[in-house]
Amino acid sequence: MKKFVYAFEEGNKEMKALLGGKGANLAEMKKIGLPVPDGFTITTEACNQYYADGEKIAPEIVNEINHHLLELEKKTGKNLGDSNDPLLVSVRSGAYISMPGMMDTVLNLGLNDASVEGLANLTGNRRFALDSYRRFIQMFGDVVLEIPKYKFDRVLEGQKNKRGFKNDTELTETDLSEIIEGYKSIVKTEKGFSFPTEPKEQLMMAIEAVFGSWNNDRARIYRRLNEIPHDLGTGVNIQSMVFGNMGDTSGTGVAFTRNPSTGENLLFGEFLINAQGEDVVAGIRTPQHIAELKSVMPDVYQQFQDVCTKLESHYKDMQDIEFTVERGKLYLLQTRTGKRTAFAAVRVAVELVEEGVISKEEALLRVLPSQLDQLLHPMFSEKALLEAKPLTKGLPASPGAASGRVYFHSEDVVKMKESGEACILVRTETSPEDIEGMVTANGILTARGGMTSHAAVVARGMGKCCVAGCSEIFVDEENKFFIINDVRYNEGDYISLDGISGTVYAGKLETVEVGLTGEFATLLEWADEVRTLGVRTNADTPRDAETAVKFGAEGIGLCRTEHMFFSDERILKVRKMILSTTLEERIEALNYLLPYQKEDFIGIFKAMAGKPVTVRLLDPPLHEFVPHKEDEMKKLAKDLEMPYEIVKHKIENLLEINPMLGHRGCRLAITYPEIYEMQVKAISEAAIHCIKTEKIEVLPEIMIPLVGHMPEFTILKTLTQKTVQEVMAAENQTFDYKIGTMIEIPRAALIADQIAEEAEFFSFGTNDLTQMTLGFSRDDAGKFMGEYMKKGIFEKDPFESIDQNGVGKLVDLGVKLGRQTNPNLKIGICGEHGGEPKSIDFCHREGLNYVSCSPYRVPIARLAAAQAAINNRK
Amino acid sequence: MKKFVYAFEEGNKEMKALLGGKGANLAEMKKIGLPVPDGFTITTEACNQYYADGEKIAPEIVNEINHHLLELEKKTGKNLGDSNDPLLVSVRSGAYISMPGMMDTVLNLGLNDASVEGLANLTGNRRFALDSYRRFIQMFGDVVLEIPKYKFDRVLEGQKNKRGFKNDTELTETDLSEIIEGYKSIVKTEKGFSFPTEPKEQLMMAIEAVFGSWNNDRARIYRRLNEIPHDLGTGVNIQSMVFGNMGDTSGTGVAFTRNPSTGENLLFGEFLINAQGEDVVAGIRTPQHIAELKSVMPDVYQQFQDVCTKLESHYKDMQDIEFTVERGKLYLLQTRTGKRTAFAAVRVAVELVEEGVISKEEALLRVLPSQLDQLLHPMFSEKALLEAKPLTKGLPASPGAASGRVYFHSEDVVKMKESGEACILVRTETSPEDIEGMVTANGILTARGGMTSHAAVVARGMGKCCVAGCSEIFVDEENKFFIINDVRYNEGDYISLDGISGTVYAGKLETVEVGLTGEFATLLEWADEVRTLGVRTNADTPRDAETAVKFGAEGIGLCRTEHMFFSDERILKVRKMILSTTLEERIEALNYLLPYQKEDFIGIFKAMAGKPVTVRLLDPPLHEFVPHKEDEMKKLAKDLEMPYEIVKHKIENLLEINPMLGHRGCRLAITYPEIYEMQVKAISEAAIHCIKTEKIEVLPEIMIPLVGHMPEFTILKTLTQKTVQEVMAAENQTFDYKIGTMIEIPRAALIADQIAEEAEFFSFGTNDLTQMTLGFSRDDAGKFMGEYMKKGIFEKDPFESIDQNGVGKLVDLGVKLGRQTNPNLKIGICGEHGGEPKSIDFCHREGLNYVSCSPYRVPIARLAAAQAAINNRK
Repeated sequence: MKKFVYAFEEGNKEMKALLGGKGANLAEMKKIGLPVPDGFTITTEACNQYYADGEKIAPEIVNEINHHLLELEKKTGKNLGDSNDPLLVSVRSGAYISMPGMMDTVLNLGLNDASVEGLANLTGNRRFALDSYRRFIQMFGDVVLEIPKYKFDRVLEGQKNKRGFKNDTELTETDLSEIIEGYKSIVKTEKGFSFPTEPKEQLMMAIEAVFGSWNNDRARIYRRLNEIPHDLGTGVNIQSMVFGNMGDTSGTGVAFTRNPSTGENLLFGEFLINAQGEDVVAGIRTPQHIAELKSVMPDVYQQFQDVCTKLESHYKDMQDIEFTVERGKLYLLQTRTGKRTAFAAVRVAVELVEEGVISKEEALLRVLPSQLDQLLHPMFSEKALLEAKPLTKGLPASPGAASGRVYFHSEDVVKMKESGEACILVRTETSPEDIEGMVTANGILTARGGMTSHAAVVARGMGKCCVAGCSEIFVDEENKFFIINDVRYNEGDYISLDGISGTVYAGKLETVEVGLTGEFATLLEWADEVRTLGVRTNADTPRDAETAVKFGAEGIGLCRTEHMFFSDERILKVRKMILSTTLEERIEALNYLLPYQKEDFIGIFKAMAGKPVTVRLLDPPLHEFVPHKEDEMKKLAKDLEMPYEIVKHKIENLLEINPMLGHRGCRLAITYPEIYEMQVKAISEAAIHCIKTEKIEVLPEIMIPLVGHMPEFTILKTLTQKTVQEVMAAENQTFDYKIGTMIEIPRAALIADQIAEEAEFFSFGTNDLTQMTLGFSRDDAGKFMGEYMKKGIFEKDPFESIDQNGVGKLVDLGVKLGRQTNPNLKIGICGEHGGEPKSIDFCHREGLNYVSCSPYRVPIARLAAAQAAINNRK
Repeated sequence: MKKFVYAFEEGNKEMKALLGGKGANLAEMKKIGLPVPDGFTITTEACNQYYADGEKIAPEIVNEINHHLLELEKKTGKNLGDSNDPLLVSVRSGAYISMPGMMDTVLNLGLNDASVEGLANLTGNRRFALDSYRRFIQMFGDVVLEIPKYKFDRVLEGQKNKRGFKNDTELTETDLSEIIEGYKSIVKTEKGFSFPTEPKEQLMMAIEAVFGSWNNDRARIYRRLNEIPHDLGTGVNIQSMVFGNMGDTSGTGVAFTRNPSTGENLLFGEFLINAQGEDVVAGIRTPQHIAELKSVMPDVYQQFQDVCTKLESHYKDMQDIEFTVERGKLYLLQTRTGKRTAFAAVRVAVELVEEGVISKEEALLRVLPSQLDQLLHPMFSEKALLEAKPLTKGLPASPGAASGRVYFHSEDVVKMKESGEACILVRTETSPEDIEGMVTANGILTARGGMTSHAAVVARGMGKCCVAGCSEIFVDEENKFFIINDVRYNEGDYISLDGISGTVYAGKLETVEVGLTGEFATLLEWADEVRTLGVRTNADTPRDAETAVKFGAEGIGLCRTEHMFFSDERILKVRKMILSTTLEERIEALNYLLPYQKEDFIGIFKAMAGKPVTVRLLDPPLHEFVPHKEDEMKKLAKDLEMPYEIVKHKIENLLEINPMLGHRGCRLAITYPEIYEMQVKAISEAAIHCIKTEKIEVLPEIMIPLVGHMPEFTILKTLTQKTVQEVMAAENQTFDYKIGTMIEIPRAALIADQIAEEAEFFSFGTNDLTQMTLGFSRDDAGKFMGEYMKKGIFEKDPFESIDQNGVGKLVDLGVKLGRQTNPNLKIGICGEHGGEPKSIDFCHREGLNYVSCSPYRVPIARLAAAQAAINNRK
């Protein structure tokens, strides 16, 4: 027969699935000899059985409970309902995966008209005993009998009014007795039966209530949001009560074995003398720091310290412990792994290794990669946050914190920065023309666009704080103001952005800087020892490249060349090139751009000093480079000395109905080969310059984007080889290079075996691959994405974490087919997913050679890659 | 040792791969005892060997040729170069797959200063012999020696000028001798050697030239365009010349065994007395009809008729025969399968079955499905075409022929049609708002858009003639004119369109009607007996549905509901629904539309009389239903009694950057479930009306478009079921129906196993699937498609014929995964590809249940499906 109830002595910490987290830990503490009040746990299987039996506790389970209750009475020498020395118990839920505050708890169970007198005797405080009884009836009425709390409150308030009292503490024993009678009659009226005075009946009802709470709305929603299965069930812990409020030799407290904020290896917590657990939380009395326990109860303190050391070395992690001291005797009521900040997580993990408690690999698994963001970006000081006034929330598009004056136009940001002002660029959405303002601003706020909108992608690339898609904001760029909740903010007003939470604050908040040093650096070195997946960066400028190298990038996985075209001295020539009618005109404009491109690449090659640099040749549709507003087109016509009508006509001709699926990527080079020719020439000349003049190694990997058909690649590969060889011949200098392609069109994945015959590397462009595989324009998805998330159609934003069931299948196919033809094919990923831990785990399992992500995500990727290596070893 | 040369006696018609088509047929005719001048064939393997040996004829092959030449001299009793009765030969290429005009031929080889005299003797015409010699030198110089023809022409013209002659015929024997000397000195000057007078040398050089012509540019391009492998090689046929110009008992002619235009079983062709082959083509003398040969040469005619009968029953198909009569003796120089019109193809195939010559299945393979288009649409009369003036060419978007006056606006077309005028609607491109004009017009001409543009798709659906993407045209709708090649055509001018060739003609041309009757109907009945693939139609209106049923459609595979929303009395309510702010407003507008939708479905169900009808719920993005021009938006605001600013703002909000990947398909119903609810209600009420009132069967198949994620389908399936059940309950009447989905997003194919658990049918929407899998917006591809076709990146337009290597792999995956979960899953295809023969063959191989295509392609699909069944049987 299946066993549904376990005394604490029968369990251990490995039995979390069966006993729930709390029950397993109580059992474990019992097992290692720690002072835990006796009790037993009803299993999660009993909970499932309860539902299987139509929400009834089966007789054999009732029998088991009664048996363990008898044992508990024997062990404690106390009896439920006893009027001298009554056994009182707590009834608490405890699931496999912690769901804080989601389920029900009943304390002091066992009180009735007889045992309340026993409690009075025991504590020497009849008023306290009566108050506990009153509270128990109310808690039981609320949690178990589902009588609205306010009905009990009305009786309490009535009594206070009658007596002219303001505070509960003024109530006498007689008052409390009257209130208890009032409470009892509420139960009678509401439920049609008397308040159950038989403790065993109380217990069974409380257990049913805990089982029932597993399926209340709050719990169901919590589980859905946290991806916890609904069929785990909850355990129920029945534990004999101990009292911290039995005078000055009693007390209660909560402590962490280390500082959860900084990670420092010192006890951290609070206690109250002569108090019960809820008093610590209630805030009526100010608790004392745990260190002070040493002077108040030196023995207990020493004993508690020993317990902490024992628990930490036993659990091999920082613990969060609840304890009670009853008449000088220490009892432990709970232990669990302590929640901590990113700082603390890293420090604790590293120090536990140094202390010999855990291995490096265990330490690597102790830190959530996504937490690391906090360690790399400035953040608001705790003090500043205490006084901060949140205005609204948007998407946490790029981490960090920024305060500054609001400006709406790139030029204004640039101008104000020159005069030394911190600035926030606020736009409905950003476009490539805002680049200079984005580079200059301290932070970016947009009203539209998702986690992969232009603002978000560019800001993350720069490591710049950005809150995007803040839909409550209305931005009027023309008149230079924005509105949140009917309040208008003008140009020059101060606001602050928290890019980790997405919160927008009014006014200027103090920020503090942090960095990649100390334990953080150590942890990442360990990550590098373990991981097999390479980590590269997406970087378009020498500055980004340098940042990324500092963060540990092993190369550039994606260097986009289009951003290089937007600076002032170039954009006019770019536009001239685009609007040329003849090949000669186009080549003339390209020749003008060549030396600039060469300088760009020299800068990047120098920053990477011999590490591989994957350069993607021009990708976006040409209309992204030209203006579309009448006045700007007129100015362009003047600058180019072309008739306005012709400029307008040509620009209109560039417009596309679905630009994402239009004339871009390698398609541009099929129609205008001279563009790629110029770019390859610039790469080659830069490479040779670095070798000859700078005396550094270079390893360019030339990447042809948007390949979907084999001849696209072969035609452009031939063009690239020819161009490189011409430069080599002219300069009388060779260099190593590779030619490969992005796999970003579904068809490319489907014909990867063919492509791999010619390509030396693949890089999965999972942004576009996701858009095309899902048929989703990320620019437009905003209109229904909310509804999709709400209805659970997407478990996760597929632009944030790779859609493993859909896009992942194409990646898998691409990898398998590619390696089938070319077993040594180098394969990476350069979409936004390259910096997201779940996606990184996927890339590891797929056997990719590297991931590439924005510079500020490189440390995250290093850690996530290490975790993937460890987790997939089994 | 491999044999490289075959005497005609050694070959047969099965040896086409080795001997080439011409050689194999000459051998076959020889074999069955027909009078073929003697000769031999050098194999295609010899050609490949020639290339393998570095463009040299290996000595053993030369030996073989010499041996066969000797045999030929023996057989004919003539010798090469003989000055009395010389052997003259023709040297002709002949590949496995005919490449007309692509490769080289040399006639009268063997002529030199000596043998020309022999030819003079033989023909009794020295002038003719000299002229032949002159021509031979020129032909040899051009083809073999690669001397530009104009150099020879200069000598000829010089001689004529010197003598004051206008025509070649005025040249005397002396003149010709002088010209021959002149030609010889050109050869000497150009090549540095004398014109080869040794016939064997001439022969070897000519053979090398034919081998060489296999790889000339023309031939290579032709092979690429026609998907002919480059490694087949060509054969070379050496045949003794016979002469049709040896007086009145000689002659030459070309004949078909049946009429290639009508298919009538009567000899069809022409002959000339006392002439050589080229004279028939040259057009200097008017040839006589073949029937007249009976009175001129009764014996030869009888003999020729017997030959024709023998060849037809031997080859089991209509033959195209070249013959020469030399001094009363008939010689056959070539036979091949005769090219024919669609009419003839069908009639010949059916009659050959009736005559017992071929089987029904053979007959089915004799007709190209794509030809059938000609039989279903009106066409210009042959007479009209003789006088027609072509203006330009566009894409042959929808077949048929149409003449009418030019109008630029839907309203004008409707107005003019009411007054009885035939009209052509001319637009830069069409949009759904032009529907009424398109329905009314006799033909449609657009300046932009490809084979799958709105104009093309809608016109094909209607079976209406359409020439699309006619890029040489500039259309000014506002001022009502268009320009082709600087000529302006105004409103009211006549033009004519040929939708099969894409040609636009000036003026009004006479058209003739054709139809699905007689042999055509018989052939399609045979097709139905053989095919396993079902054929349905894409039809949105009762009229289309009726047309399709007449053409043999077995159901509707795609009924688009959006076109139903555009008529005058509905569009305002549709727009009101789209612009509603509240659910109530939206539902009110939908309630107004419900009875119209119901009527639509009743009409369609009646037309299909119990056949399955797949209804696709609303698919396009909502902005397609609203106007975007200021004046139209203002009018709408007035009609809806809404402020203009709000209407404008809402419409702008509907705009999308990539509408193809935006808020459309089932995504609309996830956000606005009430739209699909109304549509399902209309379908259900219509179905019940048909059962109760019309007493007909109905079988609606409700199709949810654009599913990419499982919950999209399950949510909308539940909604659909609930709605159907509500209507059934209210009407107290049930009906059979199915719920399925389109597979048109790549992800849907990747998770087809999941979808098949819930869906009762799949329909591959290969239009969108192609766009997404290839990352190609068909609306925008025009900018580079030309370059892509030119560079051979696409072998075929992937929107025309399914991209089997890319999209096809997803279809394959979708079918396999779908049937893995649900082996009985009904699967069809409803993209444009459903009517294209190669795609139909693919669908057959994939095991699909049916294809669905526009009504006018239904007969094509029936035939193509039959051919697929036959061809894939092996």
